[in-house]
Amino acid sequence: MNNFNFCSPTEFIFGKGRENECGDYVRKYGGSKVLIHHGGKSAIKSGLLDRVKNALEEKGIAFCELGGVQPNPRDTLVYKGIELARSEKVDFILAVGGGSVIDSAKAIAIGALYEGDFWDFYSGKHAEKALPVGTVLTIAAAGSEGSGDSVITRTEGMLKRGTGSDVMRPVFSIMNPELTQTLPAYQTACGAADIMAHVFERYFTNTTEVEITDRLCEAVLCTMIRETPRVIADPNNYEARANIMWAGTVAHTNIVGVGRDQDWNSHNIEHELSALYDCAHGAGLAVIMPAWMEFVHRHNVLRFCQMATRVFGCAMDYETPENTAAAGIKAFRHFLHDIGMPINFAELGAKEEDIPKLVEKLGLLDGHTGGFVSLCSEDIAEIYRIAARASL
Amino acid sequence: MNNFNFCSPTEFIFGKGRENECGDYVRKYGGSKVLIHHGGKSAIKSGLLDRVKNALEEKGIAFCELGGVQPNPRDTLVYKGIELARSEKVDFILAVGGGSVIDSAKAIAIGALYEGDFWDFYSGKHAEKALPVGTVLTIAAAGSEGSGDSVITRTEGMLKRGTGSDVMRPVFSIMNPELTQTLPAYQTACGAADIMAHVFERYFTNTTEVEITDRLCEAVLCTMIRETPRVIADPNNYEARANIMWAGTVAHTNIVGVGRDQDWNSHNIEHELSALYDCAHGAGLAVIMPAWMEFVHRHNVLRFCQMATRVFGCAMDYETPENTAAAGIKAFRHFLHDIGMPINFAELGAKEEDIPKLVEKLGLLDGHTGGFVSLCSEDIAEIYRIAARASL
Repeated sequence: MNNFNFCSPTEFIFGKGRENECGDYVRKYGGSKVLIHHGGKSAIKSGLLDRVKNALEEKGIAFCELGGVQPNPRDTLVYKGIELARSEKVDFILAVGGGSVIDSAKAIAIGALYEGDFWDFYSGKHAEKALPVGTVLTIAAAGSEGSGDSVITRTEGMLKRGTGSDVMRPVFSIMNPELTQTLPAYQTACGAADIMAHVFERYFTNTTEVEITDRLCEAVLCTMIRETPRVIADPNNYEARANIMWAGTVAHTNIVGVGRDQDWNSHNIEHELSALYDCAHGAGLAVIMPAWMEFVHRHNVLRFCQMATRVFGCAMDYETPENTAAAGIKAFRHFLHDIGMPINFAELGAKEEDIPKLVEKLGLLDGHTGGFVSLCSEDIAEIYRIAARASL
Repeated sequence: MNNFNFCSPTEFIFGKGRENECGDYVRKYGGSKVLIHHGGKSAIKSGLLDRVKNALEEKGIAFCELGGVQPNPRDTLVYKGIELARSEKVDFILAVGGGSVIDSAKAIAIGALYEGDFWDFYSGKHAEKALPVGTVLTIAAAGSEGSGDSVITRTEGMLKRGTGSDVMRPVFSIMNPELTQTLPAYQTACGAADIMAHVFERYFTNTTEVEITDRLCEAVLCTMIRETPRVIADPNNYEARANIMWAGTVAHTNIVGVGRDQDWNSHNIEHELSALYDCAHGAGLAVIMPAWMEFVHRHNVLRFCQMATRVFGCAMDYETPENTAAAGIKAFRHFLHDIGMPINFAELGAKEEDIPKLVEKLGLLDGHTGGFVSLCSEDIAEIYRIAARASL
């Protein structure tokens, strides 16, 4: 196990009706003038935004608002938010939405206290201070409610880049699984794929002797395998929604990933898909992750056997472990298909002829090698090709 | 799943040699005059205490010290610590040791800022403020390094009582698995039993639909079953020590126990054993936990089957699930015996004829019913009797 530091100070406020307490928690964490950041349509339609505003008004907390966050959140809205936060002298950002809204809120929170261009942080600079961010989560997926990470897309050139700092961790996150019950099945499944990818990026490691984090990763994966089909079958299944919601947070606070080298190549490879086609991140991951697994699994067949047996319940083939590894990857792809996810480029709306362009854009950043298996541009092209042509 | 709040703000600083950074972390969390609290002998002999003092001196941090904490830490030393903290105008308590030292440090931390008798907090009062506590952990067991809990024994009448409050959570905990390598096998095994008990007290619940926390609990248990025999066989196995150390923290920050009713009857029943015989808490739990399981398992045979199959690898007997449940409990007791733990009163140094006295002392507090199965005094006497007479 590697040395590590771990700190997850976010207060999670979980359960039915908890959004009505958001005024108390904004107060508790020092907010007096709030910027409510949201996507727009669904939070308004469901009445959630009104409930949040009422909760703030009840505690005498002033607020302004900025809606319009779209999936794969854009720098353009972040600039608007920074301007608004400054002109309104906001001291707290409240994100009401999913990972995109929260990521956008985090970008505003670091940008508002920084004299330069906030994009500097998405080009390698480390954020040292931020306005406090609170969240009212509406989708179990990104884990952004408990993480110090944020991913923003620069409209010019559709560059999707991330940054991370402990100052960006939300001070509180309100998590009411009821709020996710109105999500369409497709978005629910995208969230599930994202959660599972967050675990797999940690699970496939070259660090040995990490039994505790292996087991914790497997715990999250087993939960997702049990609970996701239940919410696809019945969107109003509160209990399954609740299990997925907590699993999504556990998957990404990093408590299951400490002390081990991690591999975020699948996320990086996917980001180019969602940047180019504006597809859902989770859907892109559903196409990329199994393809990445097929490409790298020979690097450590027994680790893939561990996944196959412990997570997907495959029988171990002791004579030919390769069969078990393959069965595990196949089971994962079947699972993704069964919950309604795309499994190849055609189903995603991507094009094989764009692969050179995808690889080229990814190549703009260095550091795409490293991880479980170090990848060069040609390896990445091959992973895209496997993903393009995958079938059940 | 029940509604819940979860917040675990402690910064964990994990790995080889990290105790040498304790000056930095005391500074980071605002300490300028530190009370170093410790047990004495082993921290002095190993040179740990000198390293800690050097690390503080290097950062120009003043300190005083109070050693002499014993297992089942006593109120008498807490009173001394409160007096010292006040007279020396201490603003930070640094616990160097295991759960007993940390629990004692927490009691000093709340007592120093309270005008009344600190024992009030161990008699039902909720602590609202405390001096910041940091820890340098030397044994994986109590989970006190990440929890807001503390258990103290009142010398008069040997009353062992606990209290809990978020203000008592350590601001940082330094966890170097190397520091646990000098622990005798018996103490190592006691720690393992304690960690597993912390999980079981959460695992056996009447709350349904808690797949994610079930799985996380099982992750910790599976880790303990793999790693504990490895450190008993080789005390210097750093990797196994590291896995156990992180498992111990995960077991008790409550991330594996949120959203579900818990059952702390085994802990309470054990406390009377360690209070009366001054035996190690973990050893007492090794005797009590399987006995408690035998007594209550008919309440939910299938939950015990889940434990037996997922944690101990027992085969499921679908015709007679009771057999599987029994096999799981038997496997647990065998495991405890194999790591050198007592499994009955004789091996622990307890006496069956003391049972009425044990029950009477426990009866002094109300609220001992409740939990997975509500227990009356006669039930508790029967659990003690099963524990007294247990064999492999």
